Amino acid sequence: MRLADLVTPALLADADLLDGNLRAMGAALPGARLRPHVKAHKSTALAKRQAALGHRSFTCATVREMEGMAAVGLSDDLLLANEVLDARRLGALDARVTVAVDSPETIEAAAAGGVREVLVDVNVGLPRCGCAPEAAGKIADLARRRGLSVRGVMGYEGHLMGVEDRAKRTDATAEAMALLARAHADVGGDVVSAGGTGTYDVNSVASEIQAGSYALMDTAYAKLGLPFRQALCVLARVISVGPAWAVADAGLKALGMDHGNPAIDAASVWFCSDEHVTFAAREAPPVGAHVRVWPGHVDPTVAYHERIWLVRGDEVVGELPVDLRGW
Amino acid sequence: MRLADLVTPALLADADLLDGNLRAMGAALPGARLRPHVKAHKSTALAKRQAALGHRSFTCATVREMEGMAAVGLSDDLLLANEVLDARRLGALDARVTVAVDSPETIEAAAAGGVREVLVDVNVGLPRCGCAPEAAGKIADLARRRGLSVRGVMGYEGHLMGVEDRAKRTDATAEAMALLARAHADVGGDVVSAGGTGTYDVNSVASEIQAGSYALMDTAYAKLGLPFRQALCVLARVISVGPAWAVADAGLKALGMDHGNPAIDAASVWFCSDEHVTFAAREAPPVGAHVRVWPGHVDPTVAYHERIWLVRGDEVVGELPVDLRGW
Repeated sequence: MRLADLVTPALLADADLLDGNLRAMGAALPGARLRPHVKAHKSTALAKRQAALGHRSFTCATVREMEGMAAVGLSDDLLLANEVLDARRLGALDARVTVAVDSPETIEAAAAGGVREVLVDVNVGLPRCGCAPEAAGKIADLARRRGLSVRGVMGYEGHLMGVEDRAKRTDATAEAMALLARAHADVGGDVVSAGGTGTYDVNSVASEIQAGSYALMDTAYAKLGLPFRQALCVLARVISVGPAWAVADAGLKALGMDHGNPAIDAASVWFCSDEHVTFAAREAPPVGAHVRVWPGHVDPTVAYHERIWLVRGDEVVGELPVDLRGW
Repeated sequence: MRLADLVTPALLADADLLDGNLRAMGAALPGARLRPHVKAHKSTALAKRQAALGHRSFTCATVREMEGMAAVGLSDDLLLANEVLDARRLGALDARVTVAVDSPETIEAAAAGGVREVLVDVNVGLPRCGCAPEAAGKIADLARRRGLSVRGVMGYEGHLMGVEDRAKRTDATAEAMALLARAHADVGGDVVSAGGTGTYDVNSVASEIQAGSYALMDTAYAKLGLPFRQALCVLARVISVGPAWAVADAGLKALGMDHGNPAIDAASVWFCSDEHVTFAAREAPPVGAHVRVWPGHVDPTVAYHERIWLVRGDEVVGELPVDLRGW
C-alpha cells in the first residue's frame, strides 16, 4: 500500500525514525531502567516492540490501558501511575499490578479492589497528584497496615519536562528529586519511579524512568534538543485552495490542541477547525496534494485515532492499532 | 444505574436539557428548515431523536459520518458539507447523497466516485473551503457539464458564530449571506444551506440551517445568550487533593481543548494534563467527590468518547453511543 491509498486524516509513524528512537532510549536506559509509559502511544503493538528491546515493566495512566496490556501478556510488571478510587478491575487482572496511592482513600480503594502492591505517589512540585514529601512515610505505614506491599515511591516532575535550557532542567530536576529521595528514605522499598522524555538523562535519582513520548515525539518535545526524532505526523490532503491559503483535511478531531496549533513544513498554520487546518504555504500546494501535519502534543493526538500507519517514504509498511483508548 | 456507578471520565448529557434544546430548535426551525449537523454529537441515536422531531435531512463533515447515517436508515437526504477527493465510498451508499464542491478537482472526484448531486460551496468570509462568490456560477456550469445535478449553494459563516454582540452578529451575517445570495443567483437550484447554532435565528437568507451544537452546547456557545442550555459535561472524580488544589480524572483525552480550559462550577481551573484537571474550588472537595467539567468545545470533546450517558439528576436513564467517530 502507498501513502496515497490511505484515507485522510491518517496518523503516520516513520518506521525507521520510530525504530531509531526506541533503540536510542534502549541504549540509554536498558531493561528495567526504563518503564515505558504507554499513555503516549496507547498501542500494545508498539509496547511489544519496547518489550522486545528489553523493557518488560510498563507504566499506564488508565485502568483500560492496564487491562489492554494484561490482555496481550505484557503483564510482568504493570504500574498504574495514577490514583483510582475503584480498583476492582485492577484487582481482577492476571498480571503483576502496582498502583499509585497518595491518601487514605486511595489506599483503601487499592486494598478493597484486590490490588496487592502500591507505590507512594509524592508531589515533587507539579500541582497535581501525590502527597507532600514529609507525609510519604505515614502513607506508607497506612498502606502496610492495610496489608499492602509498598514497593517504593514515585514522583513526576512534569512541570520541568518543557524547560528548554538543559542546565536549568538538570538543576530543577535535582531539586525535585531531592524531595523524592527524602520521601523514599521514609517509605523504603526498591522502586524510585520518576522522570519522562524531557528528563530521562538528567534524572539521576530515579531507579526507573517513566518516559513514553520519546518513541513518537511531537513539536513540543522537539524543542528540547533530545536525541529522538519526530516520527509521528498526521497525513492530510489539500481539499481546497483559497486566494492566500490552503485547507487540508486534518483538524481538531485529529490533533491534540492543548499545546497550540500543529506545524506544517514551509507553511504558516492559521487555525484548525473540526476537520480542517487552514495554512499559508510558501509554495501554494494544489488541490489533492498530501501534506504532513506535525502535532504539538503526541498523547491527545494519538487518542483520536484508531491506528498508526508505519511508513517508509511513500510506502505503508505496517500498522499499529491504537487499542488502549478510553477508560 | 446511578452516576456513582459510572467509570470516570464519563460524558453526560442531561436528558431533559437535551430534550429541551431539541424541541426549542425544532420549534424555531421545523422540518427541513433545519439540516442538523451530526459532527457535533457523532451519534446516530441522537440523530434519530432529531429525525423523530421532523428533521429528515442531515449534514455531515466526514465520509464515516455519511456511512454511519446511511447504515441506520437516516438516508433521505445526506449532505457532506465538505470537499473530498475520493468520493467512491459516498457513491456506494444506499442514500440520497449530496457533496460540496468548490473546484474542478472536487467536481471530478464527485463524478468519478458515483455521486450524483452537489452543492457549490461558496466562501462567505471564513478563510477555509468554498470558491469565491463570483466563481460559483462557473463551478456550477462545470459540475453540470460533468453530469452532476447542482442543487444550489452552501456557505458557512463560521467566523461569525462566536460574535457575542447579537446586533453585530446579525449585521455581519447579513453581509456574508449577501455574498451567498449573489452566488446563488448565478448557480440556481433550490438549496441555500448555511448557518450554525450561533446564527440560526439571524440568518434570513439560508433555506436551511446546518446547526449541530445546539443539542448539547458548550461554554463557548453559552456566552451568546441563545435559548439552548448546556446539556453536556464530563463527569470526573476527585482522585487527589493538594494544599491549595484538587485533581479530578478528566483531562486532555476527554476534552476538546482548542477553546481553552474547561470550566468547573465554583472553581478555578488551573490546567489539564492527559488524564487530569487541576483546579482550585471555593470549597475544597474531598477525595472521591464527583465534579462536573464543562467543556469549552463540544465537537472535539465528544469525539474522544465512546458514548454519551443520558442522566436525570443522579440517575443514568440511557445511553447514546458515539458511533460516528473516525474517517
